[in-house]
Amino acid sequence: MHRLTATYLVETPLALDKAAASLAGEQSSGTFVAVPGETDELKARFAARVERITELESTTTPSLPTGRAAAPGTVYRRAEIEVSWSLENFGANLPTLVSTIQGNLYELAQFSGLRLRDLTLPEIYRSAFRGPAHGIAGCRRLTGVQGRPLIGTIIKPSIGLSPAQTADLVRALAEAGIDFIKDDELMADPPHSPFDARVAAIMRVISSQADRTGKKVMYAFNITDELDAMQRHYETVVCAGGTCAMLSLNSVGLVAAKKICDLGTLAIHGHRNGWGMLNRHPLLGMEFPAYQKLWRLAGVDQLHVNGIANKFWEPDDSVVRSIASCLAPEPLRKPVLPVVSSGQWGGQAPETFRRTQTVDLLYMAGGGIMAHPEGPAAGVRSLQRWWEAAVEGLTMAEAAGKYPELAVSVAKFGTSG
Amino acid sequence: MHRLTATYLVETPLALDKAAASLAGEQSSGTFVAVPGETDELKARFAARVERITELESTTTPSLPTGRAAAPGTVYRRAEIEVSWSLENFGANLPTLVSTIQGNLYELAQFSGLRLRDLTLPEIYRSAFRGPAHGIAGCRRLTGVQGRPLIGTIIKPSIGLSPAQTADLVRALAEAGIDFIKDDELMADPPHSPFDARVAAIMRVISSQADRTGKKVMYAFNITDELDAMQRHYETVVCAGGTCAMLSLNSVGLVAAKKICDLGTLAIHGHRNGWGMLNRHPLLGMEFPAYQKLWRLAGVDQLHVNGIANKFWEPDDSVVRSIASCLAPEPLRKPVLPVVSSGQWGGQAPETFRRTQTVDLLYMAGGGIMAHPEGPAAGVRSLQRWWEAAVEGLTMAEAAGKYPELAVSVAKFGTSG
Repeated sequence: MHRLTATYLVETPLALDKAAASLAGEQSSGTFVAVPGETDELKARFAARVERITELESTTTPSLPTGRAAAPGTVYRRAEIEVSWSLENFGANLPTLVSTIQGNLYELAQFSGLRLRDLTLPEIYRSAFRGPAHGIAGCRRLTGVQGRPLIGTIIKPSIGLSPAQTADLVRALAEAGIDFIKDDELMADPPHSPFDARVAAIMRVISSQADRTGKKVMYAFNITDELDAMQRHYETVVCAGGTCAMLSLNSVGLVAAKKICDLGTLAIHGHRNGWGMLNRHPLLGMEFPAYQKLWRLAGVDQLHVNGIANKFWEPDDSVVRSIASCLAPEPLRKPVLPVVSSGQWGGQAPETFRRTQTVDLLYMAGGGIMAHPEGPAAGVRSLQRWWEAAVEGLTMAEAAGKYPELAVSVAKFGTSG
Repeated sequence: MHRLTATYLVETPLALDKAAASLAGEQSSGTFVAVPGETDELKARFAARVERITELESTTTPSLPTGRAAAPGTVYRRAEIEVSWSLENFGANLPTLVSTIQGNLYELAQFSGLRLRDLTLPEIYRSAFRGPAHGIAGCRRLTGVQGRPLIGTIIKPSIGLSPAQTADLVRALAEAGIDFIKDDELMADPPHSPFDARVAAIMRVISSQADRTGKKVMYAFNITDELDAMQRHYETVVCAGGTCAMLSLNSVGLVAAKKICDLGTLAIHGHRNGWGMLNRHPLLGMEFPAYQKLWRLAGVDQLHVNGIANKFWEPDDSVVRSIASCLAPEPLRKPVLPVVSSGQWGGQAPETFRRTQTVDLLYMAGGGIMAHPEGPAAGVRSLQRWWEAAVEGLTMAEAAGKYPELAVSVAKFGTSG
């Protein structure tokens, strides 16, 4: 029988096998007293199964409140545990899969820490889920960029520009040779920049440049909204000749995001704002390898992973692991394009390449382009040059020594990195 | 101008005013260097505004990792802060509202703790959002229950029963006088209990009992699935004469849940499984008063709040506050029916009433009904009696002394409470 496996980091004041059994029970047949109808045959067929318990370190302070008074000297044991479910329990129903692997687990008093680390999805899911309609190869085809990262930027300020002002910025960026531009996630369809007017103004610029040069900038229009509006906005982008739409994944939710991805014409740029809530405490929530698998099943083509030396709290090791998980073939044998973002100005390219050995990235820089001392075109060229230097194997210092234009960007942005 | 206000509990190694300003900047015009186009006029119109900073206690240990080395002796200050945004930034776009008040905030290195406590929504939202189509009054009308809590239960085992076996349980419960029954959240449309067959079998029992007695049990069918399937299942329930559908809110997501609520025929039972991930750490995530407002805007009619002396980690004070927030008129002047659940057997009724002074509840008991020593009908009668005793003002012990049938349930379930 096909089974789904989930790996958790747990912390518990109980014996590990007892705690693991309570987790498995809660997430399959579980009830607080025995009831008629719960036969051994049913249990064997539908029960979650504890597959592995690997004991880790212990602590005397619980990481999360348990709501129970602890005896003095209580030890909280940590372990990695693996639990599996028969696919029969939920089938290809993605939100019910999520309820099964997460559900009430995070509320169990038996645990003082619980974190979903990873998932292994049954191979049979390849026939039930299409996954990313475009993925990395498709995004390269749509932008005509091969052999290096796509270079992208964000329209700032996030809020307040009119469609005409935004189109002016897009013109400058397109002429500068940018591959990708996105709306800010705080910007959707406000009165000062109605969605339809913004798409019309921006696509006029992008299409006319594509007609002249053969290069069509990919613009991720933020269609995040209620469902009917998202579908309408998606059509507006398609009709205007656009190639990409952006969703704030956590705000929209899995089911509506999948409905949009299923449309399949546009590449879907997945913004993970809100992710910190799910991930920042080391013994709560979930880790990115599990998270990205769910969104890959939903069909997202591009997914934010933060960046090396980012402006947020996330350590580089975690970013490196996120990039690797996006590029790993499973699930569905379809990788998702990692979107490297947050405080990036180019100087992080050498370390990013050294640690990930890939150019299959969408590399986003904000001020690094628009605030470049010699203008946006120099900013874009500088980012491309940073990536050439990175692939040559140079460090940031070596690259700045070899290429004068990179010395310029280190002088301007180096302290913020 | 109409503004939305969010209240956060924060912890930061920075000066509080500086940290609050960085939060407001990130969630409106924010970028990491100044760029052309960001005028003072734009800033004044669209910037988030820090409305209040109330300093609380300090600590020398950060609650969450910041990704930055701290100087020895660093103090982490806690405060409650209030930030407001012009409605013009996002309008009636619910997911973009969520991205605005949550967004990247949880990733900011400037904070070692950040938790959304509450929201104040602009009154003008009453014209943009319908909110719960049925709410408390509607659920009472649909079930014919006045003056006491609706008494409900869950079909267990969660997974494995066939439609015919489930219908047999429903028959026993309906004959026992139950008001409400729900599918388990792990149970949606599996091969051993296909949704359509389950609805047909169960509604045959419920309708025939309603024809005989005039009392129609409300059954919350779990329609959680991909969007097209949810819409199809919703129609199936409507056509079979059902009155309620259940969604796993966090797994489905805000946008698809609102799309279903907008249909407006069935009462929507909102299950909050996964909630612990968002709430369990005291300095991360969000608190229930904020959470329930978002789901009320989406239109959910019934929302889980856990229960007094529950089997999970949640303290009673938190449960009491959740119930109060569901019953408060704002937003939209439409309360949502609190679903009291988790380890409830009736004995918690006195304390629940003493602390909340309300009978506007859906009171769910699992084993407390099905495993009652004198059968399910005695279980349902016992729960009704518990609530009569609670409204009389009796304690659990006084109630058990006065009513022999309550002494029976204390003897059976009292230790698990």
